[in-house]
Amino acid sequence: MSEKSLVVTAPNWPSKFADRVKYMGESPIRALMKFLGDPTIISFAGGLPSPNTFPKWEILVAFMQILSDPKRVISALQYGPTEGYRPLREQLAEKVGRYGVPATADNILLTCGSQQALYLIGKIFIDENTIVCTERPTYLGAVQAYDSHGAKYCTVPMDENGMIVDQLPKVIETYHPKFIYAIPNFHNPGGVCMSLERRIKLVEIAEKYDLFIVEDDPYGDLRFEGEHITPIISLAKERTINLGTFSKTLSPGLRTGWVVAPEKLIPELAKAKQGADLFSSLLLQMAVSAILESGILPEHVKKSRALYSERRDAMLSTLDKYMPKEVTWTHPEGGLFLWLTVPEKINVREFFETARKEGVAFIPGYGFYPREVSPEGELLPERPEANATMRLNFSAETPERIKEGIEKLAGLIVVELAK
Amino acid sequence: MSEKSLVVTAPNWPSKFADRVKYMGESPIRALMKFLGDPTIISFAGGLPSPNTFPKWEILVAFMQILSDPKRVISALQYGPTEGYRPLREQLAEKVGRYGVPATADNILLTCGSQQALYLIGKIFIDENTIVCTERPTYLGAVQAYDSHGAKYCTVPMDENGMIVDQLPKVIETYHPKFIYAIPNFHNPGGVCMSLERRIKLVEIAEKYDLFIVEDDPYGDLRFEGEHITPIISLAKERTINLGTFSKTLSPGLRTGWVVAPEKLIPELAKAKQGADLFSSLLLQMAVSAILESGILPEHVKKSRALYSERRDAMLSTLDKYMPKEVTWTHPEGGLFLWLTVPEKINVREFFETARKEGVAFIPGYGFYPREVSPEGELLPERPEANATMRLNFSAETPERIKEGIEKLAGLIVVELAK
Repeated sequence: MSEKSLVVTAPNWPSKFADRVKYMGESPIRALMKFLGDPTIISFAGGLPSPNTFPKWEILVAFMQILSDPKRVISALQYGPTEGYRPLREQLAEKVGRYGVPATADNILLTCGSQQALYLIGKIFIDENTIVCTERPTYLGAVQAYDSHGAKYCTVPMDENGMIVDQLPKVIETYHPKFIYAIPNFHNPGGVCMSLERRIKLVEIAEKYDLFIVEDDPYGDLRFEGEHITPIISLAKERTINLGTFSKTLSPGLRTGWVVAPEKLIPELAKAKQGADLFSSLLLQMAVSAILESGILPEHVKKSRALYSERRDAMLSTLDKYMPKEVTWTHPEGGLFLWLTVPEKINVREFFETARKEGVAFIPGYGFYPREVSPEGELLPERPEANATMRLNFSAETPERIKEGIEKLAGLIVVELAK
Repeated sequence: MSEKSLVVTAPNWPSKFADRVKYMGESPIRALMKFLGDPTIISFAGGLPSPNTFPKWEILVAFMQILSDPKRVISALQYGPTEGYRPLREQLAEKVGRYGVPATADNILLTCGSQQALYLIGKIFIDENTIVCTERPTYLGAVQAYDSHGAKYCTVPMDENGMIVDQLPKVIETYHPKFIYAIPNFHNPGGVCMSLERRIKLVEIAEKYDLFIVEDDPYGDLRFEGEHITPIISLAKERTINLGTFSKTLSPGLRTGWVVAPEKLIPELAKAKQGADLFSSLLLQMAVSAILESGILPEHVKKSRALYSERRDAMLSTLDKYMPKEVTWTHPEGGLFLWLTVPEKINVREFFETARKEGVAFIPGYGFYPREVSPEGELLPERPEANATMRLNFSAETPERIKEGIEKLAGLIVVELAK
């Protein structure tokens, strides 16, 4: 038999796939984001930080320092520990400690953005059909990570004070979730914060029902106004896994997020990470560490807050001015998003296409609703509000374009309502 | 209820874990690698490329170019596509094409090292108890990645021409594996190459039994002597997933590996990666791209080959000189490792401790044996050869230290055999 006469056919690939592939969804955002680069469209669709906020110079300096230092460059380019660069873990422990997060280098694991942290949590806690309790709506990246391990969901709605925790006990008694996933600060997509009172109640409930809490906090640093609220992990150190990231305060391209968890969990998370990608680049982690060391971060974040705050104000004031009365939206004190609700008469899925053709983009709400099940485990139909809501991002466009885009969007909604 | 009076206890964490945690092993290498930094120990244990081979200057230049370019710096620091930086995928298609790997940008996915590629393949193909057929011994990083998805294994032994494919049909008929995982070039840990004749036979067998092949090729670039052998993927494009990495030719810290796969699989792998970590740093991928663009890689790899070749020669000649006749080892034409077999009288697990105390380290063979099952699915006991073998790495120490270490090791083996 020679090379030339080999006959090789293609397998029927789908028949080879693992069972879990059937519930591994693609992010619905992703398909919508394709036109993000189109300058003729005013986009409220993304979740991207403004490139204006990247501390480009400081990042350049950090990389030059590391790569030109004969000793550091070797560590930066060699294999590294799965848990991450220890000096950065030490710096982080101090940084998050100032916000009330109880951490030492030993209960921090560095990850490739928050997404990897969400994924690893799924990996070690979620079996097929494990129920996760989330806010409604919730972050779709978390849902995508959990889905890939076979999660199903039960949900609790939010109001302007975040998750309505009074509804939790009944949901827990009905669905027996394994843990509660919450985004207490500047919720994505909700745009609201969970009040301290509710955080305390949430912790009491978690204790009573022996659940743990995943506290996802990518935006905590981006508070424009109001008072810092005690993190859940500082109320329930033993029952909370807290996630953070530098994606919104330095740059997503540095791919540096972290988990603060009870120390017992770190080896399990590290094992999961080791199988998944062995380790994250020490070069990137050392660059982040050098930037923290330089002390520029607080001033830098302050500038980002000012920039985003101005853009949020532009969005809120234009919404106030032009939106019909039947439309409501949240008033975020920080973060990147607000959540807008229209009368159910408008089908936002279809309206999205109309708006896009007119040069305005957003993310339709349905993408943020995880697939809920009945107490018997049957998939429930989509909630009506999933088609009457949208997420608006205010970080990526200038105030002028935000005003123009919201005025246009309001006009289109007026037309839809008049139909 | 106030913050102060909250009583929060720790959950019984293990009772919360997903079922898969029980088969998520830690790498046995990892525990052994702790003393790697100890300069008093001559270590043949690692799998690290020599830091002397990192093109530090070129990497510094690449990062400076990207980070000081007003346009490129924005892409480098922003969110990026899950499939990876397209220009690098195009460059790669050309690069691997020269080795006979049929690729275009559209059937390449960039990954965080080869480890992530192995993991994603497990994610989309391996269910609990899916059987994977591997060479015996095999790469433990692959086993760790597959294990975490619930794989079990059947194996085929190797000789100096790689996997003894004549034994494959019987193994396949007995165990019905889903795919064959092979490291055809400079096997880790085996140190051998699969001959072209066997590659052709392997493809025939894969076609006959409708299996696919995962061709893991991290060392292909590091051939010191002999002729390049046609890659399996070029014989069976439709049935092969081919993996590569820059970890051994540029630097592991750049975390850039890749998958070449039938185009249909790329969206599935990308979905899996999206859930796992969203995307890999474009900054790192753009730096790799700039280095490829600069054209230094071929000359650079040539230098690495010369360095490793000299070290391999030092190891082989010292083994020839001092090892007792009952000891055998492979003669690698490239890569980083050779595989040494001692009489079963020596328990290598215990001997490892003896050698370490005397200042020489290696990896005992047992770490490279995946857990095999009987045809009925029962876990089989460890093979006797797992305790009579060891992997020796020749890339990390200087020729002088290699000679010293091997002489010492040989002396210790002589003592053991005389016992």
